[in-house]
Amino acid sequence: MSKSFSVTILGSNSALPTSERYPTAQVLNVSERFFLIDCGEGTQVQLRRNRIRFSKINHIFISHLHGDHCFGLIGLISTLGLLGRKNDLYIYAHPDLEKIMLPQLQYFCKELPYRVVFKSFDHANSELIYSDKHLEIYTIPLVHRIPTVGFLFKEKAGEKKIKKEFVFKYQPSIKEILSIKRGEDYYTKEGELIANNDITLDPPKVMSYAFCTDTRPSKKIIDLIKGVDLLYHEATFLNEDKKLAHKTYHSTAQQAAGIAKKAEVGKLLIGHYSTRYRDLSLFLDEAKSIFTNTQLSKEGDVITIS
Amino acid sequence: MSKSFSVTILGSNSALPTSERYPTAQVLNVSERFFLIDCGEGTQVQLRRNRIRFSKINHIFISHLHGDHCFGLIGLISTLGLLGRKNDLYIYAHPDLEKIMLPQLQYFCKELPYRVVFKSFDHANSELIYSDKHLEIYTIPLVHRIPTVGFLFKEKAGEKKIKKEFVFKYQPSIKEILSIKRGEDYYTKEGELIANNDITLDPPKVMSYAFCTDTRPSKKIIDLIKGVDLLYHEATFLNEDKKLAHKTYHSTAQQAAGIAKKAEVGKLLIGHYSTRYRDLSLFLDEAKSIFTNTQLSKEGDVITIS
Repeated sequence: MSKSFSVTILGSNSALPTSERYPTAQVLNVSERFFLIDCGEGTQVQLRRNRIRFSKINHIFISHLHGDHCFGLIGLISTLGLLGRKNDLYIYAHPDLEKIMLPQLQYFCKELPYRVVFKSFDHANSELIYSDKHLEIYTIPLVHRIPTVGFLFKEKAGEKKIKKEFVFKYQPSIKEILSIKRGEDYYTKEGELIANNDITLDPPKVMSYAFCTDTRPSKKIIDLIKGVDLLYHEATFLNEDKKLAHKTYHSTAQQAAGIAKKAEVGKLLIGHYSTRYRDLSLFLDEAKSIFTNTQLSKEGDVITIS
Repeated sequence: MSKSFSVTILGSNSALPTSERYPTAQVLNVSERFFLIDCGEGTQVQLRRNRIRFSKINHIFISHLHGDHCFGLIGLISTLGLLGRKNDLYIYAHPDLEKIMLPQLQYFCKELPYRVVFKSFDHANSELIYSDKHLEIYTIPLVHRIPTVGFLFKEKAGEKKIKKEFVFKYQPSIKEILSIKRGEDYYTKEGELIANNDITLDPPKVMSYAFCTDTRPSKKIIDLIKGVDLLYHEATFLNEDKKLAHKTYHSTAQQAAGIAKKAEVGKLLIGHYSTRYRDLSLFLDEAKSIFTNTQLSKEGDVITIS
């Protein structure tokens, strides 16, 4: 459906940032509309480095209220105000975020020239939280120490396109055009049947992206993310530390790859690496042994789905 | 008095960070004790990049409660907790900071293994807010849109040292040693006077640093910062924008240099540049035309005073 569908990695690390690896933040670009997913400290600087125009971001999705996923919000909100933003900014998150942010906004952003609108949702069940002409966004309940959700971004199927030659030759009425777009065949004035397939082009393929962090590996998400084109699944630990992963409600690279395989996704992107690991190639090797089409997320990467 | 006395610039910019210029944060190193001054977003990453060990920071000084001077606190406090810090952390700031931070600490840092101790002070008058064996820190009331102070770091004068040859030859009593250190002359058993200057070495020169941001140029600070070795004074604007500087309660490079000149400081360091300017050499040229020994602050700079 879209001209562009890509994810830019602003932060790939877990809670402790290093000098190169930032806490979680990503931007999904759907036909030049930008959706910010999580907002760790430093997100605004990373947006600048990746030349993403602040004004194009109208919707921010926060997976859960651990600091490494939301400490960058207040700085970004403040900066958007200094830049003279007028459009409402929507933040989708646990309802506690509004309670925590409001006193800060009232103190630090008294003269904000735009509205920040907090949207909350049920964390226990998948829910449609956003819908426009082209895109739907659903929550994906995850299993972490505090209420946490992932987000599923699904393009809506477009309409069939009617071939120009047909329109030119038969000059169908508007009513006929709508019925052809719905998939019906066409009858000429002479009563001749023309099969729908012969006079239409299929709509462009719809793309989908699932973002799942932080979480233990959860079989319950498999149906929700079945067959997505790209899955981001956290891989905080290596398999050698799987007890620690379980204890802290995180996943290993192997477990992330297992979920990708069971959900038959197109591609797996992993991240949220614990700072204890220096050599990230170990994550890639571990995941690839289960699910070949895996990629490490790194700051500045743009993963295009086509 | 000290083996080292240096300032590391973590952030040199004003409110809108760029991809290279961070909001305000500096570290003063006084003989390997590190004092953090202001804490804009990204300070913890900048500390890592400059290889300053987090555990060496026990005292943080916040000039005022605009976000570009304190949005990095929550991330830094949280990270210190994840690193297992045990020592109390002291934060010197306007009393409102504690009110704003406490709900965040209670929510995001429930299991913090150390105490955060907030210290506040009178913003209208200069006050001694910290004192140890080697160092005193005073506030410097500034003129900004909200209550704002600078900080004056002054080493305490050390004692005179008694020359070894003298001690070896005359074997003075402890009482005599103390009186010599106070500057008194010595009388041998034969009643011969030995002048204090002949048997003592002066203590090392004491160093001083004054940090002044954000502020209109203020004559009232001149007596407080008179003769400091190094003055950091904000220069948000160039002289061509001095009306805007006045309106927003900031200074121009020319005004910063004028303060440095009147206060007869050793060296001037400028920063807090508005993002509107790309070429910072214009700030340097403007300041140097008034006060020659001026330096631009830039991320990663270490300014050593000796």
